[in-house]
Amino acid sequence: MRRLSPYFLVNFKSYEETAGDDGLAFIETIERVSEATDTRFAVAPQLPDLRWIAERTSLPVVAQAAIPRSDAGMGDATIEAVADAGAAAVFVTHPGLEVGFESVGPRIARCRDLGLESIVWVADRETARAALSFDPDCLLYERPSDVASEAGMVRTDPERIERFVEFVADESPRTSVFVGGGVRTAEDVERAFACGVDATGAASAAVEATDREGWLRSIAAAVPD
Amino acid sequence: MRRLSPYFLVNFKSYEETAGDDGLAFIETIERVSEATDTRFAVAPQLPDLRWIAERTSLPVVAQAAIPRSDAGMGDATIEAVADAGAAAVFVTHPGLEVGFESVGPRIARCRDLGLESIVWVADRETARAALSFDPDCLLYERPSDVASEAGMVRTDPERIERFVEFVADESPRTSVFVGGGVRTAEDVERAFACGVDATGAASAAVEATDREGWLRSIAAAVPD
Amino acid sequence: MRRLSPYFLVNFKSYEETAGDDGLAFIETIERVSEATDTRFAVAPQLPDLRWIAERTSLPVVAQAAIPRSDAGMGDATIEAVADAGAAAVFVTHPGLEVGFESVGPRIARCRDLGLESIVWVADRETARAALSFDPDCLLYERPSDVASEAGMVRTDPERIERFVEFVADESPRTSVFVGGGVRTAEDVERAFACGVDATGAASAAVEATDREGWLRSIAAAVPD
Amino acid sequence: MRRLSPYFLVNFKSYEETAGDDGLAFIETIERVSEATDTRFAVAPQLPDLRWIAERTSLPVVAQAAIPRSDAGMGDATIEAVADAGAAAVFVTHPGLEVGFESVGPRIARCRDLGLESIVWVADRETARAALSFDPDCLLYERPSDVASEAGMVRTDPERIERFVEFVADESPRTSVFVGGGVRTAEDVERAFACGVDATGAASAAVEATDREGWLRSIAAAVPD
Repeated sequence: MRRLSPYFLVNFKSYEETAGDDGLAFIETIERVSEATDTRFAVAPQLPDLRWIAERTSLPVVAQAAIPRSDAGMGDATIEAVADAGAAAVFVTHPGLEVGFESVGPRIARCRDLGLESIVWVADRETARAALSFDPDCLLYERPSDVASEAGMVRTDPERIERFVEFVADESPRTSVFVGGGVRTAEDVERAFACGVDATGAASAAVEATDREGWLRSIAAAVPD
Repeated sequence: MRRLSPYFLVNFKSYEETAGDDGLAFIETIERVSEATDTRFAVAPQLPDLRWIAERTSLPVVAQAAIPRSDAGMGDATIEAVADAGAAAVFVTHPGLEVGFESVGPRIARCRDLGLESIVWVADRETARAALSFDPDCLLYERPSDVASEAGMVRTDPERIERFVEFVADESPRTSVFVGGGVRTAEDVERAFACGVDATGAASAAVEATDREGWLRSIAAAVPD
Repeated sequence: MRRLSPYFLVNFKSYEETAGDDGLAFIETIERVSEATDTRFAVAPQLPDLRWIAERTSLPVVAQAAIPRSDAGMGDATIEAVADAGAAAVFVTHPGLEVGFESVGPRIARCRDLGLESIVWVADRETARAALSFDPDCLLYERPSDVASEAGMVRTDPERIERFVEFVADESPRTSVFVGGGVRTAEDVERAFACGVDATGAASAAVEATDREGWLRSIAAAVPD
Repeated sequence: MRRLSPYFLVNFKSYEETAGDDGLAFIETIERVSEATDTRFAVAPQLPDLRWIAERTSLPVVAQAAIPRSDAGMGDATIEAVADAGAAAVFVTHPGLEVGFESVGPRIARCRDLGLESIVWVADRETARAALSFDPDCLLYERPSDVASEAGMVRTDPERIERFVEFVADESPRTSVFVGGGVRTAEDVERAFACGVDATGAASAAVEATDREGWLRSIAAAVPD
């Protein structure tokens, strides 16, 4: 599997302005900026649009959520289906998705089998150590309270991120770190990468930017090559 | 909103052979049989494929699950997104999807606002009466134990279905009845419609049919015009 | 089953100062006030204390939550166990307890079988109508946002409560109405009963009262005979 | 904290014959056998009976489930309340209780703060390694399919248990191993302890024994001193 980092993820979550043609137009803007600035961006489209978007973009596509087919029922997005649809990575857990302790390992393993980068959310070092025992590709380091906040860790406590990056580098050098929560400006992105992270991203800040192309260009300037 | 019934739903759930190109090939077979026999079929594709499939088929598309944007977070399929993607109907609840008592009414209402047919699962008349107070478009009448079974209600207790249809006709004539669970053969489908239902469907039986076109043609012959 | 209303419920939820001996001391204060003022109070003790408290008090005991044994597994409080322990009523649902649409009816029925008063939470008239189809003994009318708030419906919109009481009286005269959420003072309680409710109660306000006996006496004066 | 092992746990789960006086009578039988045979037994009473039972028995009491007060709402049993009620141990997770990946560490820590033995369920070595990073007191090693089965791991694959015990001894010598699932007879118990486990137990087999005292005596003979 080709590693994605360093990159900046634009996460559509379930925002109104990001479904279908609106979402595609947004992605085309991201692609334009990505190419013009030679910066890696990735996108996490709305789930019902995943294959449709993956077919239309050269950007790496991240599944906002997915579970193994063996655990899935009606209405579930499976790791198998998002892999088949062209996703490059999957959020195995995230602050809004509680996954049972016993399920995280098998889900990471299923991503590995299918060549998908597995992203696992952790809010502290203790949980990170537990997650690392499953050898995930990427840890999403984020405090639930930072989501859509103006006072994310990247602004209020970058040293904490730095220490986390060092901790992961010591414990599992091959695992990348994605810092999330409250990333809104180019300055935030710069600060995040200065802490040593491999990736960061935004959802509400991206969607709410009045001049999306301008915002994306400012972000691109803050993402290392 | 154009009413869908009578129809037969092929539900892909999360089966292996139904994602992406495999699913599309299956749908093309359904379309061919639908046109050749002048029979109404509908499909419930895997969630990550929803928009991609909706764009490629003239069959009505049913969302296996979706929730209002106002309740949604990262990884959720929203009613708004599936409407935008071209879905005609949504399973608001189903035997594998527990939806809180207080959420069912607002979800039906959101489907109504967006012109989507709302399908609500009930396993008994008491729950049906409660569901009808929210004025859904369609009740899915199904016993959880009948899912993927060889001894579904349609085989073992068609009178129960008949009484249920009469009950709904009395209480809310505009609401249609979809009977599910253990429907595997043309005979089952004939029996279901003989009970007065507006729709029925299959998942495992459809996916497992060795001669899908043959199976679909036999089903088509059992669906009333 | 003896109907409890009118009454005022002191709900211990999972507050620190309400387990074991602390909770029992609180209940003894409530009993003293109840007897001195001839006012009906009820208590909802912490779940692990339920039988222990029920054995020690003459006040009606309400189970904060319970499910039928047929649905229960390890760690669940069953309706059967709380009935056996001496509870008089059960919260079948409440704002913090999402119960699947299909489960509410059977749970109310199980309470009925065992002679327990069933209390079902609803936040609006539409959900109330659905709930009434299961013939519960009591509707808890409460907006989730009112929990532990200073601006509960009883202060900001008593007319809404009044209309709700009338609605229930029309639809199901035998069903009582419990209004909850943001009830903190004797004035709130007076206003609630003036709207025609059968019961109300408090959790945080009761636990946080610096002079519990004084607070309870003021409440007692506001509960009708 | 006094370590409990080696011991045999009688788990009441939510069985009919184990609430209130029935449960107490059962526990008195266990106490009698425990004293007569000088064998350590523990009990996991039904949750609403927990404090009532703890007050009446000298046997160590295990909470079937509990969560930290900081995460708890109405109807939840808290770690704080069961500690106050006299429990000696808590099942932080078990096969019927999915606990989010990010919550397991803080729950184990809360048990530690309150002097309660924390028991964490794992079904495989990978999950065990993750759990051990939180330093729990005891791992419950059990396959979900073994619950109430006649073909538990202790009968079909004792070598697997042995290897698991060795693995835990290597990784975290202070952590004890409780093997569960399908333990029904004295022979099963003997085999379990022969594999090196610190504890085992039964639920359905204990409750269904026609001669409980006889069954308990046979079990006692199989538990090491």
